[in-house]
Amino acid sequence: MYAPIKQTTETLIIERSGPVAFVILDRPHARNAMNVKMIEELTDFFTSIRDDRTVRGVVLRGANETFCAGADIKEMAHPESQTRDAQLAYAEALDDLLIAVQYAPQVVIVVVEGVAMGGGFGLVCVSDVAIAAPDAVFAMPEVRLGIAPSMISPFVLQRIGLSQARRLALTGRKLNGFGAQEVGLIHEVALDEDIETLVEEVVSDLLLASPDAIAETKALLFAVSGQALQESRSLRVDTLNRLRNSSGVEGMAAFKEKRKPNWVPEEAPQVRE
Amino acid sequence: MYAPIKQTTETLIIERSGPVAFVILDRPHARNAMNVKMIEELTDFFTSIRDDRTVRGVVLRGANETFCAGADIKEMAHPESQTRDAQLAYAEALDDLLIAVQYAPQVVIVVVEGVAMGGGFGLVCVSDVAIAAPDAVFAMPEVRLGIAPSMISPFVLQRIGLSQARRLALTGRKLNGFGAQEVGLIHEVALDEDIETLVEEVVSDLLLASPDAIAETKALLFAVSGQALQESRSLRVDTLNRLRNSSGVEGMAAFKEKRKPNWVPEEAPQVRE
Amino acid sequence: MYAPIKQTTETLIIERSGPVAFVILDRPHARNAMNVKMIEELTDFFTSIRDDRTVRGVVLRGANETFCAGADIKEMAHPESQTRDAQLAYAEALDDLLIAVQYAPQVVIVVVEGVAMGGGFGLVCVSDVAIAAPDAVFAMPEVRLGIAPSMISPFVLQRIGLSQARRLALTGRKLNGFGAQEVGLIHEVALDEDIETLVEEVVSDLLLASPDAIAETKALLFAVSGQALQESRSLRVDTLNRLRNSSGVEGMAAFKEKRKPNWVPEEAPQVRE
Repeated sequence: MYAPIKQTTETLIIERSGPVAFVILDRPHARNAMNVKMIEELTDFFTSIRDDRTVRGVVLRGANETFCAGADIKEMAHPESQTRDAQLAYAEALDDLLIAVQYAPQVVIVVVEGVAMGGGFGLVCVSDVAIAAPDAVFAMPEVRLGIAPSMISPFVLQRIGLSQARRLALTGRKLNGFGAQEVGLIHEVALDEDIETLVEEVVSDLLLASPDAIAETKALLFAVSGQALQESRSLRVDTLNRLRNSSGVEGMAAFKEKRKPNWVPEEAPQVRE
Repeated sequence: MYAPIKQTTETLIIERSGPVAFVILDRPHARNAMNVKMIEELTDFFTSIRDDRTVRGVVLRGANETFCAGADIKEMAHPESQTRDAQLAYAEALDDLLIAVQYAPQVVIVVVEGVAMGGGFGLVCVSDVAIAAPDAVFAMPEVRLGIAPSMISPFVLQRIGLSQARRLALTGRKLNGFGAQEVGLIHEVALDEDIETLVEEVVSDLLLASPDAIAETKALLFAVSGQALQESRSLRVDTLNRLRNSSGVEGMAAFKEKRKPNWVPEEAPQVRE
Repeated sequence: MYAPIKQTTETLIIERSGPVAFVILDRPHARNAMNVKMIEELTDFFTSIRDDRTVRGVVLRGANETFCAGADIKEMAHPESQTRDAQLAYAEALDDLLIAVQYAPQVVIVVVEGVAMGGGFGLVCVSDVAIAAPDAVFAMPEVRLGIAPSMISPFVLQRIGLSQARRLALTGRKLNGFGAQEVGLIHEVALDEDIETLVEEVVSDLLLASPDAIAETKALLFAVSGQALQESRSLRVDTLNRLRNSSGVEGMAAFKEKRKPNWVPEEAPQVRE
């Protein structure tokens, strides 16, 4: 069995179990609201695994059975946070975090229990697979504070489309797990024990895939989604053929020989605590 | 209680109840089909409130428990409407209307009973919140008349995506309220009395939000949805920080002091007739 | 009754029944996997009807109650297919096929029983109307072979959006008919006999529409979906007015005279085998 490696920072608990990293937002007294420190530490973590293909999946969740209440309003309302420089730094740091998660070459799985509001809502939007409890609560309450879900807006639009983004951003309306699934914000709703089973299934799925193929496919989807059809053709042709001549060689050989490709690990990583 | 102000035009009934305006498409003999006059009057109404932040929400519905049958085919087929100039004027006027509603800085709520066809389908697409009766009927029947849902097409695509737009525009197939919710055309299905309760809830939600934050958020969503991620960064940073230094100051103060922000009215506007 | 005209090629069975063509992918021993020959023949078919307005609908399905297993991996893994030229030719041929189906001026209906994987998943994405059996299986298993769903990626993104595309392409997860409907990949789920009834309904719907209006509407939707709102205005105005002065004249006249327009056939084409 993998020997899990555990690391605790000021705002995060990071546990590595073989090819999968488990990251826990750990400010339970503030429902894991993202203060500047958490934003930095989370960005640092994703930056640190950017070129590490031995990490193939990241499972992101919150301490104390709640995900993330959004920005830390108390910190945000503090005079020190109100200088022009502090405001600018905060906005850019949040954008950098969302970009680091969105473009991570790993499969990022988010598990939402409790609340996912504001910036926490944004984190859900940049995940590859999102699983939620039926009674999870999703909302963008920014307009009720006189501000806007500004930094997360492009990720929200990509995730749930203009129609639902307008509705939810303008009304601050709350969705539960099922509502979040209906609008496409999350992919699966599961109760308690079933959440762990679903995480195991997704982890087991992603370990069947070549890490290079995952990284290339993810990058390709982002590139293609911003391009016209004809424009993306050469990129698509090149990506396919590059993979056919690298990890695809092993994949095809394994298929012909009816064996597992060499990237499928012998043992599954430990998902349950 | 607010003293409602009622105004009747040739094709509309407009009632103002405090921060909310109720607009009724009023050509019941033609299932509220949009003739040139209605298109003009509706555009004029939205233009008149464009810079008026005391109007914070607009509830749009149709007289006689039906929403809008689309273009007025009888008028459209009349020889006077068939000149090149008349055709051009009609197409541009319809586009101007859809743009005026889409970009209104208020929250636009549409309530659909009966039919929402053609141009009426388009009006639903430009709303922020759409509520429908289970037996409402949504369709784009244009191809059966030998024409195309041409002016509404970008709004339809933004609303329900290419896949459903292709299917519905090419087949003219009808959806009921549940079908319309499944494809993302509307947000909530409600029966009779529940429709009024839902409208009250949405109105009550939007009055918790700063009018400036709503206007800025709505404009931001449209701007960002047409831009690449990096391109929109400075706009997003600026919008957030501008609001933090304007309505956000009151919002943060109210949050810290555990009171309602000063934009939340003492009394709710009257929604039920 | 229409006398059906039947044509058999190496990989396809093509049957013409009046205004509708039925195309069956016919490599049942390989679950209708697309080898180079099938890709060519299918592209040739769609090219051959490109300017033929007497063909108004195409129903595409697979032999032996399965749709299409994707690329023919055995052929793909063959040394002859591994030259740089062969790889390039394959990628471009698949792109040409998907483009030919997507932009066909006819209504393309896809019926999925059994599997729709990889390239078969891509074919579903370029259809106008997709109907599936409840136990149909949809997946993009490419990453498990060490490659990427590269050529189909823009069509997948257009069809199911970035969020579901990321999830399904990165995990290879299978969806059944209901799951495929939830993510917007297909439009209707139907059991056995009901599939034929649904196909009949869609065919009957499309025959109510002017063939020119269908071709113009379909082209318009693709054009508009790639353009900013203001940019598309003149195209939308021109399309509407061109149709008002061509097929719209007959459509409006038929509407006023309460008769069927002259493009509605006297008898329905034979859909059931």
